Amino acid sequence: MHNERMDIQAYVADCGRRAREASAAMARASTAARNRALRETARLIGERREALRRANEGDLERARAAGLEQAFVDRLALTDKVLAGMIEGLEQIAALPDPIGEITEVRQQPSGIRVGRMRVPLGSIGIIYESRPNVTIDAAGLCIKSGNATILRGGSEAIDSNQALAAIIREGLEAAGLPADAVQLIETTDRAAVGALISDPRAIDVIVPRGGKSLIERISREARVPVIKHLDGICHTYVDRAADLAMAVKVCDNAKTQRYSPCNAMETLLVDAPVAAAFLPEIGRVYADKGVEMRADERAADVLRAAGLPVVAATAEDWETEYLAPIISIGVVDGADAAIDHINRHGSHHTDAIITANHPLAMRFLTEVDSASVMINASTRFADGFEFGLGAEIGISTDKLHARGPVGLEGLTSQKFVVFGDGHVRG
Amino acid sequence: MHNERMDIQAYVADCGRRAREASAAMARASTAARNRALRETARLIGERREALRRANEGDLERARAAGLEQAFVDRLALTDKVLAGMIEGLEQIAALPDPIGEITEVRQQPSGIRVGRMRVPLGSIGIIYESRPNVTIDAAGLCIKSGNATILRGGSEAIDSNQALAAIIREGLEAAGLPADAVQLIETTDRAAVGALISDPRAIDVIVPRGGKSLIERISREARVPVIKHLDGICHTYVDRAADLAMAVKVCDNAKTQRYSPCNAMETLLVDAPVAAAFLPEIGRVYADKGVEMRADERAADVLRAAGLPVVAATAEDWETEYLAPIISIGVVDGADAAIDHINRHGSHHTDAIITANHPLAMRFLTEVDSASVMINASTRFADGFEFGLGAEIGISTDKLHARGPVGLEGLTSQKFVVFGDGHVRG
Repeated sequence: MHNERMDIQAYVADCGRRAREASAAMARASTAARNRALRETARLIGERREALRRANEGDLERARAAGLEQAFVDRLALTDKVLAGMIEGLEQIAALPDPIGEITEVRQQPSGIRVGRMRVPLGSIGIIYESRPNVTIDAAGLCIKSGNATILRGGSEAIDSNQALAAIIREGLEAAGLPADAVQLIETTDRAAVGALISDPRAIDVIVPRGGKSLIERISREARVPVIKHLDGICHTYVDRAADLAMAVKVCDNAKTQRYSPCNAMETLLVDAPVAAAFLPEIGRVYADKGVEMRADERAADVLRAAGLPVVAATAEDWETEYLAPIISIGVVDGADAAIDHINRHGSHHTDAIITANHPLAMRFLTEVDSASVMINASTRFADGFEFGLGAEIGISTDKLHARGPVGLEGLTSQKFVVFGDGHVRG
Repeated sequence: MHNERMDIQAYVADCGRRAREASAAMARASTAARNRALRETARLIGERREALRRANEGDLERARAAGLEQAFVDRLALTDKVLAGMIEGLEQIAALPDPIGEITEVRQQPSGIRVGRMRVPLGSIGIIYESRPNVTIDAAGLCIKSGNATILRGGSEAIDSNQALAAIIREGLEAAGLPADAVQLIETTDRAAVGALISDPRAIDVIVPRGGKSLIERISREARVPVIKHLDGICHTYVDRAADLAMAVKVCDNAKTQRYSPCNAMETLLVDAPVAAAFLPEIGRVYADKGVEMRADERAADVLRAAGLPVVAATAEDWETEYLAPIISIGVVDGADAAIDHINRHGSHHTDAIITANHPLAMRFLTEVDSASVMINASTRFADGFEFGLGAEIGISTDKLHARGPVGLEGLTSQKFVVFGDGHVRG
């Protein structure tokens, strides 16, 4: 065991060295070469459909034999639709503008030097994820586009599929004249590999964990390199006294019920006291019809019950719970200040919205709610890289430093200062 | 001891709660109120000169009694010049444009929502520094301007001076109608307070350590909150075969000798082989005249010796040493690729420059050198918040995430996404 662990550390360290080496070549690579690698990978996925399905079959068989849930097995499957999605995703990433090399804000300084900023790749990015094999393609695609090297560590249940996909990506890189080691997949399913990966700042510039909360918490706690992470999505909508209530019903319906499982789905509805009696029965009927369980504070429960709607008493825990399910907590508050205070205190700083026609109040909500995305008169479900125009996302960050909210290509880059002089010296 | 440690933890946790509370008020505060706090603090420093000097006298007496070096005692002294510098610094920060509240990149998306970014304070910032009391004013000033709350932990040798200064800042905040707790000074000199401060992500959003390498390394290793840090400044200048050699002499003289102790002073000179024989005797004479010890590789040493200049053989360690002293390592390389490779391998990713008239080569150096600041035909000494036009700096970051290079007000902020809708829902 001790020796095995040493072997794994040495193996991961070797991956790190290769990634560091490859990252220098990627940083030099032309836009055209990086896009060619993406398009070549897309083409190869189409061409190797059968081989990919055979590799995937191995994962599926093991999952079924282990008695894993059908939903889990479904997420693992490389169906035609999943493969088509991968190809489309790569084509979309290739079509995005290149973030790398952009020079901005070049200004002449009193000394005479011109100072600006150049956008450059971060270097070497570790991605740790669970069992969806499409993350292998999405993550590698974004890292290639942004000129980074990446080390992928997918869930052990998808190891055969991931190896087959990684081999195709590496072939795509080589076809474009780029180093295959710009994308490496950790080939052991031993958990010690994760520990080694997140402990070496010389090999890895940033870790992006994608998966459940416990995975992300463990990685954040143990990592010795920076982590771009996403914890809870406890998203709120506050319906203000100045709201158009028909709009509020439409938006609150969408934010909660369009899909239950995404992190940007609403979990808590806050209603301004003066409109509670008019609004809650309306939205309550929508939720009741769709089978959404309503957990309400006393004031909200009174209104809902009086309207003959089913309601459960909310506990303190409900205000800090991400249900990801047809359950919603509902509270009545006295004005926007109370709503903002509730959101900043109980929320997860992910995405929160106000419904109001009151402009100064809307702007105050935008300023004072301390969340990655803050919205006026829109569904929290819009908090998403595609909807925000970022083109694609590697995740949604609830951190404040570096990348906040949906993380697109820009989050995988940094800016260095560039100085243009003509023999200038400091006096 | 155990009880004392518990008390310190509780004390620091209480500071953290107060900072968190104050940060909400600071985020709401108007530009005018924050600037008024800065100007009021400046005015009070002028008014309380005598009281500040008396407090400082306590620190100075203890330092002298402890037999500390004269240079150390000098750095501790609140002379007229130091006080005038503090006042001027605060006035300068007050005069800077407000970074907070800026909304940029608002674009309409296909769904119809408008998505942009709003610049907001980070929240609560911990600053850990050594014994210069002026850092108390500089750091607090930048945090107030950027709408953050801050907890300051200065060196124990300056505790009396720092307490007197912090009291004035808190008075300035209150005069502007802002919470005094937006600036708190840790009043115990127990080291356990640092441990408590860097361990609580709920209380502190980011730590900025300012001081020697060992302090910064210890904090980075132990922190459980993000750190904006600056380690070594092993800065290079590469003199290319296409350089104007007279310009190269002027720039290399300035980069090394204008001041020896700043982190942006040059430590390693790399000279392209074809111009080594012409260039090295010229710059060598400048260095020899100024008493700079030259540690050279074999090829450089041969040229310098042949010119009758004093030279020492460089060891492997020299290429990775930040001297901060009149010592320079000098190597001859075969072209820009070898120089870039040397810099990326042995440097500290701080500031590096090329001297050349060759435009494509200069642009390649800019792109491929993986450092926070990369310069063409300019002295590395320019890597500085004021010289870069940032107005002031809280430090220089050699990290890649969030803030890279000189960190001004922008590094103390984050951007959140803001969404303007009109009842938009996701389809």
